[in-house]
Amino acid sequence: MRVRADLNISLDGIAAPPVGTPEEPFGEDWGRLVAAYVATRTMQETVFDNAGAGTTGVDDAYARRYFEGTGAEIMGAHKFGLDLYGDDPDWQGWWGPNPPFHTPVFVLTHQERPSLEMEGGTTFHFISAPPREALRLASEAAAGRDVRIGGGPTVVQEYLRAGLVDELHVAIAPIVLNRGISLWDDLRGLDEGYDVRSEASESGTSHVTFTRKVTP
Amino acid sequence: MRVRADLNISLDGIAAPPVGTPEEPFGEDWGRLVAAYVATRTMQETVFDNAGAGTTGVDDAYARRYFEGTGAEIMGAHKFGLDLYGDDPDWQGWWGPNPPFHTPVFVLTHQERPSLEMEGGTTFHFISAPPREALRLASEAAAGRDVRIGGGPTVVQEYLRAGLVDELHVAIAPIVLNRGISLWDDLRGLDEGYDVRSEASESGTSHVTFTRKVTP
Repeated sequence: MRVRADLNISLDGIAAPPVGTPEEPFGEDWGRLVAAYVATRTMQETVFDNAGAGTTGVDDAYARRYFEGTGAEIMGAHKFGLDLYGDDPDWQGWWGPNPPFHTPVFVLTHQERPSLEMEGGTTFHFISAPPREALRLASEAAAGRDVRIGGGPTVVQEYLRAGLVDELHVAIAPIVLNRGISLWDDLRGLDEGYDVRSEASESGTSHVTFTRKVTP
Repeated sequence: MRVRADLNISLDGIAAPPVGTPEEPFGEDWGRLVAAYVATRTMQETVFDNAGAGTTGVDDAYARRYFEGTGAEIMGAHKFGLDLYGDDPDWQGWWGPNPPFHTPVFVLTHQERPSLEMEGGTTFHFISAPPREALRLASEAAAGRDVRIGGGPTVVQEYLRAGLVDELHVAIAPIVLNRGISLWDDLRGLDEGYDVRSEASESGTSHVTFTRKVTP
């Protein structure tokens, strides 16, 4: 079991645009941040139901990997949309009746909400727990497969700062945003515990992967 | 004639550590920021006189390119060391009697200093001029070859914000620093006027190159 996180960021480290509105829940920059990722065959087939569409190069290889081997996900309340729709007891997230997770998903929130069983194997559990406790629950649910820290960036930061992430992959889009939440804040020296490898894609994206050093 | 800039930056965009001291003029992080670049054959042979030493992969190709085709350089007072040694009339910069520029170098400063002719074709001129005027002088001196905006990052930023750079290459070292001068500040939308391409190296460095779009 490994703990993994994947994020799309800009050259200046922005992993999420400023908090959105109901009209534009992810902010105006979101589309540019995830453009190369959304364009992949994996995303087109898995999330957008466009069989045969999408790019098949380096970006797609990372997108495919994103969905492989994951047994549970942990996500923040914002990623589930509770900041905007928490008052609506019928809110089921952004992903429709068959979300692309197909595993248990633990949503970190102080709100009490009943678990939500969706089609395709995704069940959302709403828990109020510190990072290690949430990870323990997710690890149990993952039953030996990987746990993904799904974001948003502040949740990923929490797990990185606590030294709980085994593998971090960032896809650096070749854009400069200058506003939003920067992934790298307060993470000086992060690289020290990791081997780091870079791979470039045709879209101009730089894929940087931190893999925790194995101490014998 | 093209205007070019090359910088080594960290994942969080830091292009220069906090201002140094005479003991550690470039700050403690500098060595890590430029490690892959210093390790190249081009740098080992050109700057450190170690014939046959150094890496010969992707990082080296960029290092070689850094020195090719340049006819003049513009640099800030800090890069020449005037913040620390400006009071010393005999100060000749960091690079010894035969600096690795081999072209005219225009140092932006309000100090009046006589031009300094070094071995190997480098002549330092000390000028007090706004960016466009300095570029005009450097372009004349370059006689059709490229002008390099040599840094530090605040000087490169000034030229980027003024829209005067044709090609920007950043070598992103796989480290997180969290302190120093960030290249990307106040450059939102920089990418819009450029084609951007990414290439990865064995050292984990991501080379990202902005090339100004040609408008027909």
